[in-house]
Amino acid sequence: MTTTSSITIAVLGSGRVGSTLATGLAAAGHEVTLGVRNPGTAQHDVLASDVATAIETSDLIVNATPGDTTLERLVGRRDALAGKVLLDVSNATVLSTDGLPGGLLYPDVSLGELLQDALPDTKVVKTLNTMLFSVMTAPGNLTTPPTAFVSGDDVDAKRLVRTVLQDLGWDDDWILDLGGISTARGTEAMALMVPSLLGALGFVPFALTVAR
Amino acid sequence: MTTTSSITIAVLGSGRVGSTLATGLAAAGHEVTLGVRNPGTAQHDVLASDVATAIETSDLIVNATPGDTTLERLVGRRDALAGKVLLDVSNATVLSTDGLPGGLLYPDVSLGELLQDALPDTKVVKTLNTMLFSVMTAPGNLTTPPTAFVSGDDVDAKRLVRTVLQDLGWDDDWILDLGGISTARGTEAMALMVPSLLGALGFVPFALTVAR
Repeated sequence: MTTTSSITIAVLGSGRVGSTLATGLAAAGHEVTLGVRNPGTAQHDVLASDVATAIETSDLIVNATPGDTTLERLVGRRDALAGKVLLDVSNATVLSTDGLPGGLLYPDVSLGELLQDALPDTKVVKTLNTMLFSVMTAPGNLTTPPTAFVSGDDVDAKRLVRTVLQDLGWDDDWILDLGGISTARGTEAMALMVPSLLGALGFVPFALTVAR
Repeated sequence: MTTTSSITIAVLGSGRVGSTLATGLAAAGHEVTLGVRNPGTAQHDVLASDVATAIETSDLIVNATPGDTTLERLVGRRDALAGKVLLDVSNATVLSTDGLPGGLLYPDVSLGELLQDALPDTKVVKTLNTMLFSVMTAPGNLTTPPTAFVSGDDVDAKRLVRTVLQDLGWDDDWILDLGGISTARGTEAMALMVPSLLGALGFVPFALTVAR
């Protein structure tokens, strides 16, 4: 399945999303470092280090921090992130009292665009933000093909992300390049589907997808 | 395919969406009246009459008017719509200069909820608002199964809509009841995907769908 040579990848965020991606990317043969605030305080399946070291030693940075905290976490790391590809899987939502997305934190724009604006020397690519975390590294387990929507301004960065997605099990036909980073407005808005989908389906793997 | 007895249905809106639905519902054996502002000025595939007559003579009203005009069109018809089911397929978007959805007209709520609030004696059901119009009456033509998301507060109204969807070719497994009308916030937000999907895919039949 591996179509690329090994890439150095930092995964920021050690919640379910980050842990799943770090494990899956390492299993695909990449050199993964989990960037966490306090390395050593918890057991991880992959190497963990502080965030600065993880970024410094990696070419591809995966943002799996909560989307409503991402800007404040990453804007100060502009120099460290320069020249790197930032694969952003997060959604910036306002949580309801039940802990589920109740609205969009940036309804007139997208977190993807705000990140690209704040990090002009970094190549931001948005993808994998329209599914339950477990699908990100196991898309073939669904009964119908899912879609990985991809948004980003840099063609080379999107090509790299596409090969990484393929390493995670994404068939090339399931990867849909929507265009520039502004198209993340559409995929981020789909986060508003999550509460009702979980209510209707239960906590099962799902991916918002385009049937054609 | 017809699982219900014939229903009297008014379709409001004679654009591509309304025309497609009116023709498809008539072909499924229902008594369809297209409600238009100026009956007789254009050729239609089904009976056309003025909007008031179409509503008066029908049990199920399909709203296929442009979503950014729907509230002003329907709020004044509150008495005529009382006791009826309103199947709303519209999306209320702010159009960009290219004529495609550039934002949501009601970003903090949904048109479905605003209609239900304005028409308390009408049973509002939102569905079919997440696909190209041609898929609404030909869902089986896609290569993978699409989803018809359904939102509404009234269980009986949603049951009626489900049977009408089945008459249009929707497999029962493809119809997903999301819950109350407030869940239309999620499906309406997916309208923001339309410009980039048309850009990426071209003008081909598509439906935003949940893979699981």
